[in-house]
Amino acid sequence: MTAELLVEKRAGEQSIVLEKRAVLLAPSTVAGPKESRGPLAGSFDRCYDDLVLKEKSFERAECHMLEEVCYLAIGKAGLVPNQIDYYLGGDLLNQIISASFCARKLAIPFFGLYGACSTLAESLCLAGMMIEGGFARNILVAVSSHNCSAERQYRYPTEYGFQRPGYAQWTITGAGAAVIGVSGDGPRLESLTPGKVVDADIKDPYDMGSAMAPAAADTIYTHLNDLQRDPSYYDLIITGDLGGVGKKLNEAILERNGVRIAANYTDCGLLIYYPQQQVDAGASGCACSALGFFGYYYPLMLKKEIRRILLVATGALHSPTTFLQGESIPAIAHAVSLEI
Amino acid sequence: MTAELLVEKRAGEQSIVLEKRAVLLAPSTVAGPKESRGPLAGSFDRCYDDLVLKEKSFERAECHMLEEVCYLAIGKAGLVPNQIDYYLGGDLLNQIISASFCARKLAIPFFGLYGACSTLAESLCLAGMMIEGGFARNILVAVSSHNCSAERQYRYPTEYGFQRPGYAQWTITGAGAAVIGVSGDGPRLESLTPGKVVDADIKDPYDMGSAMAPAAADTIYTHLNDLQRDPSYYDLIITGDLGGVGKKLNEAILERNGVRIAANYTDCGLLIYYPQQQVDAGASGCACSALGFFGYYYPLMLKKEIRRILLVATGALHSPTTFLQGESIPAIAHAVSLEI
Repeated sequence: MTAELLVEKRAGEQSIVLEKRAVLLAPSTVAGPKESRGPLAGSFDRCYDDLVLKEKSFERAECHMLEEVCYLAIGKAGLVPNQIDYYLGGDLLNQIISASFCARKLAIPFFGLYGACSTLAESLCLAGMMIEGGFARNILVAVSSHNCSAERQYRYPTEYGFQRPGYAQWTITGAGAAVIGVSGDGPRLESLTPGKVVDADIKDPYDMGSAMAPAAADTIYTHLNDLQRDPSYYDLIITGDLGGVGKKLNEAILERNGVRIAANYTDCGLLIYYPQQQVDAGASGCACSALGFFGYYYPLMLKKEIRRILLVATGALHSPTTFLQGESIPAIAHAVSLEI
Repeated sequence: MTAELLVEKRAGEQSIVLEKRAVLLAPSTVAGPKESRGPLAGSFDRCYDDLVLKEKSFERAECHMLEEVCYLAIGKAGLVPNQIDYYLGGDLLNQIISASFCARKLAIPFFGLYGACSTLAESLCLAGMMIEGGFARNILVAVSSHNCSAERQYRYPTEYGFQRPGYAQWTITGAGAAVIGVSGDGPRLESLTPGKVVDADIKDPYDMGSAMAPAAADTIYTHLNDLQRDPSYYDLIITGDLGGVGKKLNEAILERNGVRIAANYTDCGLLIYYPQQQVDAGASGCACSALGFFGYYYPLMLKKEIRRILLVATGALHSPTTFLQGESIPAIAHAVSLEI
């Protein structure tokens, strides 16, 4: 808990206010078996009872989930794939293979993004600008993660079993998609703060919370400062997947810089599983902010129980290669403000 | 040479015309030792005489190149990093580590992209929209590739040596960056055609040309069709890195669909090396379109010797994991029209 806020004042503002209507529509979620036994189970559109979905590999299973959730979102929006102008998204796997293969099937012009677990917010930032700028009428944003495909790529072959430290997080098996459109019943994207890469010199590939918290704090601080807002402007500030360790650290960094968010702040990494599900510090993965926000909070916005949310998805840009070369783990966080 | 054009008519147009001035400024290039002995050597801003640049690994060397070229471009544009609003880019490595680490150093708000060797055009498409939409005044776009870091990740440990088939391409060691601004002396981004993922069922990880050509053909056909243009509208159509095999296949696919581009068509993969440099079918890598276009053709545009270029960077979304799982190699191509 020593990382200071790494904000460096920039010449221009980092945030963008959207004045027209870029509306978040048709949020859809699918979830794996462990997630489907958690507290949000009733919030997901589809729950799978196994990890491989009758596919030949975890990677194919992840792609399967992502395709399903994309078709769900497109259908909920009352559209067919060739009415979607562009598809923005990514996932955790090398060469973002889940997204690339999904885009092959959908045949929608595709912008592949890599922001690790921040990818949902990265997609929303770019989609918001594209809609606001008049370059598209319907944009699909979609992300996925799969515990087994991610863990074996980033850390350890999942078949071997291993000791997890208490600050480790559990990569979610699931996927989320939505359509950003020009009108409709849903919260609008009100402002965006694309994040900078921040490095807190964390070198432990299990300690994602500590790696990402300084990036989250940087983006939240910058957002509030750019727009001259108090945290209380928002009914809720939601980070993507900081988990128990990162959430506390994020609060602490911001507090040391005069910003108190604890009163209206939550983290999706703490929403997905029950404590007895043994996920240590909480959930992580691209799907974490998608399952939490699309699955749980979006319906509360439609009911007007929550009117203003700042969604801050966080990504640890962890690489097994540079980790072995002694490098630390940089992180990034992008923020999107939604209002209804 | 059997792949048909995979265009499926879409409900909306795929292309976007930019009406204001998004200007491509300060293009900068750095190149490795082999590239610095090729025909374009005199076109690069900086040439390195070794592959590791006094760094401890090929990956660090790639990041070093990318950082240098970013500072070069920002300096040429008469700016300092904190006057750049956003940085868009990526590279070929898992978790786009070169770009992520470069963004950490630059501390510019960052959108990480993954489009394999199409990443330069993907960056230009998004930057063009962000400038046109009024969301930024200066955007840095930058890409890199390194023969040794890429080959050992995608194909084979470079230290071992291996037999290359005649249709293999040579991943470029180099990097390119530019600033997209709102005014200045340079060609403007006139229109964009973001591409779809196209899969020609190629399963040979050395045959990138055949994998990417159908994607290039799809994007070029769509671009010309959307804007009702003849290939002769352009002084030059330039693909990114199809090489000798892919260039012929691209021409053949388009010709079978009534579009003849051969008269004013070239590929950057054929510009970088001399035949005696033994690169088989030509050059490839994210830096290929950057070295070819920024290094060689951009100065010709400034001299008004060439006024209209369609730049089509192509990317093979090849994954060693899905290759071993029996999957084919999807590809994508994004097009940007530049005029002066």
